[in-house]
Amino acid sequence: MRRLRTAFIAGCLALGAVPALAQDKATIERLNDAWTAAFNKGDAAAVAALYTEDAHVLPPGADMVKGRSAIEAFWRQAAQRMGEAKLTTLDVQPLGPRAAREIGTVTLKTKSQPPQEISGKYAVVWRKVGGKWKLATDIWNTNK
Amino acid sequence: MRRLRTAFIAGCLALGAVPALAQDKATIERLNDAWTAAFNKGDAAAVAALYTEDAHVLPPGADMVKGRSAIEAFWRQAAQRMGEAKLTTLDVQPLGPRAAREIGTVTLKTKSQPPQEISGKYAVVWRKVGGKWKLATDIWNTNK
Repeated sequence: MRRLRTAFIAGCLALGAVPALAQDKATIERLNDAWTAAFNKGDAAAVAALYTEDAHVLPPGADMVKGRSAIEAFWRQAAQRMGEAKLTTLDVQPLGPRAAREIGTVTLKTKSQPPQEISGKYAVVWRKVGGKWKLATDIWNTNK
Repeated sequence: MRRLRTAFIAGCLALGAVPALAQDKATIERLNDAWTAAFNKGDAAAVAALYTEDAHVLPPGADMVKGRSAIEAFWRQAAQRMGEAKLTTLDVQPLGPRAAREIGTVTLKTKSQPPQEISGKYAVVWRKVGGKWKLATDIWNTNK
């Protein structure tokens, strides 16, 4: 048992990034859950708080949005037209100790009648600011 | 004069990242020039060589493309329909010593008659692999 534990610890030390990556992925998924929970109840301020102060959002069909307050206004307007957002993380790539790139898929439903499902894919650059992971760059598009 | 030079060097040392950032931005712009030169003459292999082996391309209107050989096939097909690509770097954010996030705008012309101009914005995660900057994640969308 002790030998197994030693081997496990040695393995972790040798692999180095693997446990950190798993932890970062779990953290990002937890933050995505917070993102969708906030968005789906129309709480744009809580969505915007998940971004860095100087974040960039690049939405399809609209100009780039810079900075947390503009991002809040953007998501407030979007939440009037869409809801039921779901985010699925496909890949997290660490970029040093304070940055990571996430790729995932998103589905949303329009609030029109009948509701339409929108599905797309996204890339997010996360940055660790003051010990907390925040969305720094957020861009997406649709497959069709 | 000597005092000015000392002050300049001290300033650079204090700011630290500024000269590195300017250098990275210049390198990225030079690589973007190589990207557009290769794409505009239909050299998909040269375009693909600018990406990391395991890069991700997330095009609007299509599924995600993974890995250099799939990326080459993607750009080969795209170059049959489009050309005259121009890339303009708007912002480069360093993410540690071996990664950076670029945001920019792109214009292209379709090869249909009459040609249509397509304009969009993009985010690229660059990674330094073996001392060379390569595109690791490439995603874009259009403003309209």
